[in-house]
Amino acid sequence: MTKPLLSALKGETTDHVPIWLMRQAGRYLPEYMKVRARSKDFLNFCYSPDLAVEVTLQPVQRFGLDGAIIFSDILVIPDAMGQKVAFEPGRGPVLEALRDPRDVDNLDRESLRAHLAPVYEAITEVSKNLADTVTLIGFAGAPWTIASYMIEGGSSRDFAQLKSWAYGAPESFNALVDILVDAVADHLCAQIEAGVEAVQIFDSWAGVLPEDAFETWCLGPIKRIIGRVKALHPGIPIIVFPNRAGFFYERMARDSGADAVSIDAMVPLNTARDILQKLVTVQGNLDPIMLVEGGTPMIEAARRILDALAPGPFVFNLGHGIVPQTPPAHVAALVDEVHRWRK
Amino acid sequence: MTKPLLSALKGETTDHVPIWLMRQAGRYLPEYMKVRARSKDFLNFCYSPDLAVEVTLQPVQRFGLDGAIIFSDILVIPDAMGQKVAFEPGRGPVLEALRDPRDVDNLDRESLRAHLAPVYEAITEVSKNLADTVTLIGFAGAPWTIASYMIEGGSSRDFAQLKSWAYGAPESFNALVDILVDAVADHLCAQIEAGVEAVQIFDSWAGVLPEDAFETWCLGPIKRIIGRVKALHPGIPIIVFPNRAGFFYERMARDSGADAVSIDAMVPLNTARDILQKLVTVQGNLDPIMLVEGGTPMIEAARRILDALAPGPFVFNLGHGIVPQTPPAHVAALVDEVHRWRK
Repeated sequence: MTKPLLSALKGETTDHVPIWLMRQAGRYLPEYMKVRARSKDFLNFCYSPDLAVEVTLQPVQRFGLDGAIIFSDILVIPDAMGQKVAFEPGRGPVLEALRDPRDVDNLDRESLRAHLAPVYEAITEVSKNLADTVTLIGFAGAPWTIASYMIEGGSSRDFAQLKSWAYGAPESFNALVDILVDAVADHLCAQIEAGVEAVQIFDSWAGVLPEDAFETWCLGPIKRIIGRVKALHPGIPIIVFPNRAGFFYERMARDSGADAVSIDAMVPLNTARDILQKLVTVQGNLDPIMLVEGGTPMIEAARRILDALAPGPFVFNLGHGIVPQTPPAHVAALVDEVHRWRK
Repeated sequence: MTKPLLSALKGETTDHVPIWLMRQAGRYLPEYMKVRARSKDFLNFCYSPDLAVEVTLQPVQRFGLDGAIIFSDILVIPDAMGQKVAFEPGRGPVLEALRDPRDVDNLDRESLRAHLAPVYEAITEVSKNLADTVTLIGFAGAPWTIASYMIEGGSSRDFAQLKSWAYGAPESFNALVDILVDAVADHLCAQIEAGVEAVQIFDSWAGVLPEDAFETWCLGPIKRIIGRVKALHPGIPIIVFPNRAGFFYERMARDSGADAVSIDAMVPLNTARDILQKLVTVQGNLDPIMLVEGGTPMIEAARRILDALAPGPFVFNLGHGIVPQTPPAHVAALVDEVHRWRK
């Protein structure tokens, strides 16, 4: 039995265009909300293998998606290193922000695999319960994006704390990045060893850095992580999502060592086809708000993407995560459209 | 007496590289905070010609900048059309959001020049008080960005309301855009008639739209506005700032009719030099957080920009507005560095 998503990530042509959706297990699904209600605290929810398994499988079962992504969060890494992380309803993540190099020195670098054992347990359990055509995906945040939360203490408008630290004290900032390169590489390897068949690195804030800084703090660390994972697990495809990286997508595709690059909705389809698809499998890039809207505008937008990219190595996805107000029926219609495209 | 900024916007070479800074009149200046304290309400502050004149002149006098930008706000346009606009401390603008086509029909399209008379009065007063080497700049928001505030009711993370309306009901959304094209063109013309010597169109949220939608709702309306302003005032340079437009900067430079394009900090300098500067004057693009940091990192970053762009038609600026925590001494050091570059 072949796995269309896994094949597409390896650059092979498949019978149908594979599709999965970022944040496909989430608040837009009533069955997710039911399971979510069983655990008050979001991180405890992530660390409950039974619940994580259940919500990971829900969208795959409902929609017939080609990929399952393990339900977890990019902030499990700072949490595993002893930084206080909380999720407040309506406010997003809140962390006790790192203030100086001593806070970096105090991070616990030894407990990652022990602390994240429930994630790996959930992966093993999901892999036993997946249809044999579905690919199981693991993931982690990229060092720049994780560092942004660790230093800003949450979301940010201008990333002033983060950038001031990076620009003004690059030595201690690089020390943090080195720690995160180790942690992310190790977390991805552990997920692979537990059963995921591909991994995605999310650099959600890759789009806020000037050229030199992008090379130093987005591309460089991701390249090192990919090198380490590939050294141990050469057959596992790696997807990178440098969200809103604009002009820098090409370098990521060319130089990071990734097998696939996930593109946001603002990447022109000609650029994706003529430049990126010559280098890697391309994944993307429907605007998530099109999925909220549904109907003819959504189908037409999906067809434009398919016309441009499905002739090459391609995985259909959104340009960013599903938003909570998305009607599930629109997801079903989209999956149907994508799956019919090569028939 | 020549005006270096005005000359550079017209593509001429000048004795020194001109510099002004987005949001140069603002909270980082203690003298601004003193004047700001005299008016509780932010829009009333904008509509008080005496106060607006004073804060417009402050940074020019303190730093010897080559441009003065009239102190105002992009949301004076919805305010002039009768939409309720308030500025809440720490929360940014809050508007009574437009909900449906009837709300669009109800906008007041007749009162713009009367309502904004204090802005034009302030411009005339500033122009009498400027050194004859300093260029006075007017501005407005672009239709897409103004519409985002009018429909979202403030800032937004994912622009779901805005995009849902645009994608799902393009006819009524286009009716709003048409109204805004009229209003923005008229507001820019009125500012020119009051005494500004150049204008800038701010499309702060130009970077959140896929290709087709960018053409329809960012590039198209800006092109129409520029056509109208140029028809009446052909000699006035027009700068466009399509913030974070990435791949779409080139089209804006090529097709909008603008004399200059202001670029964010993420535009690679080679792209700015080899592609954009062949088409228009380029303005930009130091990361505002570099200006917070100051010192050697700031000076080195400024020199990289100058080395790449100052040989061509160029105006030094930031990639985005000054942030409140910026030390004024860093601004002085930057202006000094830029002004010495061609000597």
